[in-house]
Amino acid sequence: MDRGVQGVDEHWMRLALNLAKAAQGQTSPNPLVGAVVVKDGRLLGSGAHLKAGTPHAEVHALNMASEETVGSTLYVTLEPCNHTGRTPPCTERVIAAGIHKVVIGSLDPDRRVSGEGVKRLQEAGIEVVTGVLQADCLRINEAYFHHRRTGYPFVTLKAAITLDGKMATATGDSRWVTGEEARQEVQRLRHIHDAVMVGVGTVIKDHPRLTARLPEGGNHPIRVILDSRLSMPLNTPVTDTAATPTWVFCCDEVDTAKKVLLQERGVSVIRTGPGPRVNLERVFQHLGDNGILSVLTEAGGELNASLLQEGWVKRVMFFIAPKLLGGKESPTAVEGEGWERMEQAWELDELEMRPFGQDWCITGLLRQTRWEG
Amino acid sequence: MDRGVQGVDEHWMRLALNLAKAAQGQTSPNPLVGAVVVKDGRLLGSGAHLKAGTPHAEVHALNMASEETVGSTLYVTLEPCNHTGRTPPCTERVIAAGIHKVVIGSLDPDRRVSGEGVKRLQEAGIEVVTGVLQADCLRINEAYFHHRRTGYPFVTLKAAITLDGKMATATGDSRWVTGEEARQEVQRLRHIHDAVMVGVGTVIKDHPRLTARLPEGGNHPIRVILDSRLSMPLNTPVTDTAATPTWVFCCDEVDTAKKVLLQERGVSVIRTGPGPRVNLERVFQHLGDNGILSVLTEAGGELNASLLQEGWVKRVMFFIAPKLLGGKESPTAVEGEGWERMEQAWELDELEMRPFGQDWCITGLLRQTRWEG
Repeated sequence: MDRGVQGVDEHWMRLALNLAKAAQGQTSPNPLVGAVVVKDGRLLGSGAHLKAGTPHAEVHALNMASEETVGSTLYVTLEPCNHTGRTPPCTERVIAAGIHKVVIGSLDPDRRVSGEGVKRLQEAGIEVVTGVLQADCLRINEAYFHHRRTGYPFVTLKAAITLDGKMATATGDSRWVTGEEARQEVQRLRHIHDAVMVGVGTVIKDHPRLTARLPEGGNHPIRVILDSRLSMPLNTPVTDTAATPTWVFCCDEVDTAKKVLLQERGVSVIRTGPGPRVNLERVFQHLGDNGILSVLTEAGGELNASLLQEGWVKRVMFFIAPKLLGGKESPTAVEGEGWERMEQAWELDELEMRPFGQDWCITGLLRQTRWEG
Repeated sequence: MDRGVQGVDEHWMRLALNLAKAAQGQTSPNPLVGAVVVKDGRLLGSGAHLKAGTPHAEVHALNMASEETVGSTLYVTLEPCNHTGRTPPCTERVIAAGIHKVVIGSLDPDRRVSGEGVKRLQEAGIEVVTGVLQADCLRINEAYFHHRRTGYPFVTLKAAITLDGKMATATGDSRWVTGEEARQEVQRLRHIHDAVMVGVGTVIKDHPRLTARLPEGGNHPIRVILDSRLSMPLNTPVTDTAATPTWVFCCDEVDTAKKVLLQERGVSVIRTGPGPRVNLERVFQHLGDNGILSVLTEAGGELNASLLQEGWVKRVMFFIAPKLLGGKESPTAVEGEGWERMEQAWELDELEMRPFGQDWCITGLLRQTRWEG
C-alpha cells in the first residue's frame, strides 16, 4: 500500500486509537490508551489499557512483540508515563525494548507530568514525534482530562426530541421519541459513562432503570438522582441497587424516616445544603471526589436549564426524530427562564451529525462553560 | 468516458434535470422541463422551458441541434405534450426532426394526457424509454403535479429553530436563529415558491418584507397574510405592494374602513366566512384557483399547528441552528394542542439533511396528509 510519510504515522495511530476506544467504559478512572509496535511496515505488537491496576497499553504491545522490538517504532495515543504508580514507568520499558522511535498522539495534560515522558525518551536517544491525530487522541479522554484539570466530572447533556423540539406530549408520554438504533446508542452512552443523572421528576414519571442494557452486557453507570425533598418512590427500578449503586442528592431538611428506608434498600442519600434546591456544585464536587469522571444527564427541561445556566454542561447530544408532535404545553429539552435575546444563546462548537436509523444525533461542545473559555 | 447503458441514459437525463431546475421560480404555472439531444455520444442540443407561453424545452433543444437531429436521441424530463396549447404539440416536432429514440423521466400525471405523448411517438416508430431518474423528475414538479391532482397548492412548512426547538425568545426576539447561508437559502425558497404565507402575528411582531432578496434579483412570491380580524398595521413592509401583491385573508365581519385603507394601498382583502378563524380550505381554494401552485409558510407555532391538523402541509423544512436558547415560554415551531400520545405524532418520509454553514436543514414529506395516503 502506498502511503506518504504523514500517512504512515496516521495509519498506525488510527489503529492505536481504535484499540483505545475498544476499551471505552472499562478503564475509568484511568484514561483510554492504545499502542502498536511497527517495524519495516509490519505490525509486531498491539495493545490497549483495559482496566485500572492492570498493564498499560505500551506494555501489552511490547509483550506481544517480544524480542523483535529493537529498532522498531512505537505508536501510542497518550504520552508514556515516567513515574511509578501501580505499575512501573512505561518509559523505562520502552527504552529497555530498544525502540527506535516513539510517535505520540497527545501529551499528558497533567502539568506535573506533561512532557516528562517525552524528555526521558529523548534523553535515551529515542526519536519522539508528538501530535499525530492529536484532536482525536484528546477527544477520547476528554472526561479524564477535564477531571484532572478541574476536579469535576465532564457532563454530557443528552436529550431525545421530535423535529419540532418536544421531549414528550403535554400528558407526559415519551415512549418512544426515537427508534431502536438511537435508543441502543443511549445504552452504549450509559456503558461508557461513570454516572447517569436525572431529576426526581423523571424517576416518578418514567420509572427508568438507567442501566446499560447492551446485547452483550455492559457496565452500568452509577445512578445519580437529584431529589431536593426526597420525594422519590421507594419502589421504583432505581431503588433496586443490586446491579449498580444509586446516589440520591437532596437538601438538608428531609424526612429522616424516608432517608432510612432508602438507605435500607442500598441507596446512598447525600445532603447538599439548606436548599430549596439541590446545590449542584456540591453534587459535582462529591461526584468528582468519588472517582466519577463522566456524567450523562438524561433529565427534563428544568434540570437541563439549571445545568446549563450554572455552566456544568460541556457537551450536548440531541437525538432528533423525524416527526412532529405539536403542543404549546408539550415539554421541551431546555426550559427554565431562557435567554432574553437570541444572540445570548449558548453556542456549540465541534459539531457532529450522525444518523441512527431514521433519527439523527447532533453533538457539540458548549462554547462557554464554567471552567474553560 | 466509460459508462454502462443504464449510466448513459442517467448521465444525459441528469443534465436535462439540471437544466430544468435552473429555471426554478420562473415557469409557474407551467412545470419545469429540461431536454437534451444527443447523437453518438455528442451533445447536439439542450434547452429548458423558461416561462409560460414560450417554447417548451424540447423545442429549444431541437432548435439548437438544427439539421443534425435525424437519428439522434432526445432526453426529456417530462413526457412531451401531444396537444395544442399556447404552443403546438411537441410530439409532432419530435417526429418531424427524425428523432430515433426518446428517453423520458416522468409521465405527465394529468390523466387526460398521461401516456398520450408516448403513444403518438411509438406510433411514429420512435423507440421510447420511460422512468429514467423518475423520482427526481417527479420531485422537481411536485407542486405542479399536486395542483393538477387536487386543485390546491403544495404547502411547504418552513421553520428556523435552535437545537432545543425554540423559534424565538420568550420576549419574541428571533434575529437571528440561523446564519447567513441558511437565511440565503430561505430567500431562494421564496424565489421558487408562488406564495409565502404568515399569520398576522408575524407581521405585527417581525415586520417582514417576505420578498425574495437574492444577490442577483429573484422573483418575489405573492404574500399571503391570514388576519381573521383585519388587525394588521397599515404601515408595514407587506402593505407596500409595489414589488409584489399582498393578499390578506380575513373573516366576514371586519372593519370596512380598514379594508378600504388596505385596498387603497394595493392590498387584496379576501373574506373567507363567519370565523372566528380564517377558513383555511377557502384560502387554499382561492390560491389554487388563482394559479398559486406552491406556498411556503413562514408562520408561528399556532398557525403551523392548524395547517398540520387540517392536513394542508405536504413538506416540512426545519433549519436547525447549533445553539441552545432555553425558556419554558420561548415559542416553538408547532404549538396548538398537540398530540396526546407520542405514537400519534406526524411522521416524515423521504428525509433529507443538508448543511448550510453551521446550520442544518432537515426536510421530509408528511406521511399522512389531507389529500394523499
